[in-house]
Amino acid sequence: MTKAHEVVAAYWAAAEARDWAAFGALLADDVVYRGPQTREQVRGREAYIRFNREGFDYDWHVTVLRIVGEDQHAASWTDFAGREGTQPGLCFFDLDDDGRIAMINDFWPDPYELPASRAHLVERY
Amino acid sequence: MTKAHEVVAAYWAAAEARDWAAFGALLADDVVYRGPQTREQVRGREAYIRFNREGFDYDWHVTVLRIVGEDQHAASWTDFAGREGTQPGLCFFDLDDDGRIAMINDFWPDPYELPASRAHLVERY
Repeated sequence: MTKAHEVVAAYWAAAEARDWAAFGALLADDVVYRGPQTREQVRGREAYIRFNREGFDYDWHVTVLRIVGEDQHAASWTDFAGREGTQPGLCFFDLDDDGRIAMINDFWPDPYELPASRAHLVERY
Repeated sequence: MTKAHEVVAAYWAAAEARDWAAFGALLADDVVYRGPQTREQVRGREAYIRFNREGFDYDWHVTVLRIVGEDQHAASWTDFAGREGTQPGLCFFDLDDDGRIAMINDFWPDPYELPASRAHLVERY
């Protein structure tokens, strides 16, 4: 397992445990979080811990489906169970030279209707 | 660069080039593609090549932003420029023991409104 893989595994374990001290220790001081779908951004460890503690005011749980780590990059695919049911979450992480998380790009894809243009080329599962 | 990283780099290069022979050579015979948002599925190399050739009947282009590969797993973050503008695409790949792509889970997140519940915790970019 790569270092980047281990860091992201620890990140999700700390988030699920609400262990914000352990969570914060994995982050660079000037970590940047981005949600490209809303174009929201959070800068800095304290602000990002607060975002996670206070931004989701319901009993959420995260299950890791995949973590892939290579050099200073990693990606995770999780299932996030929250107020509106279970939704996949996809994150891309960039680590700094000290192995701390410096950048997170976080994606939350919603269900959508299968386009008619390719319906004849697929089956449903 | 890991083998899985190289395979996914070659996959996107072949797709962008519409080089379906090169594309197909990267796939396991019984490759399975899944789009979890629509719950669509395609099974087998020939069906999956056809899905890519015929399922998107407009002049699309893909730009790779990140590829992460580890052992028999990889993830990619691309920008997909198509009929409706540019959209991020996130894929998780699983390779078989021969290093061919056996499973693809493909996500296409759309923009959404920033929830008011966390608007005070973020800035926009």
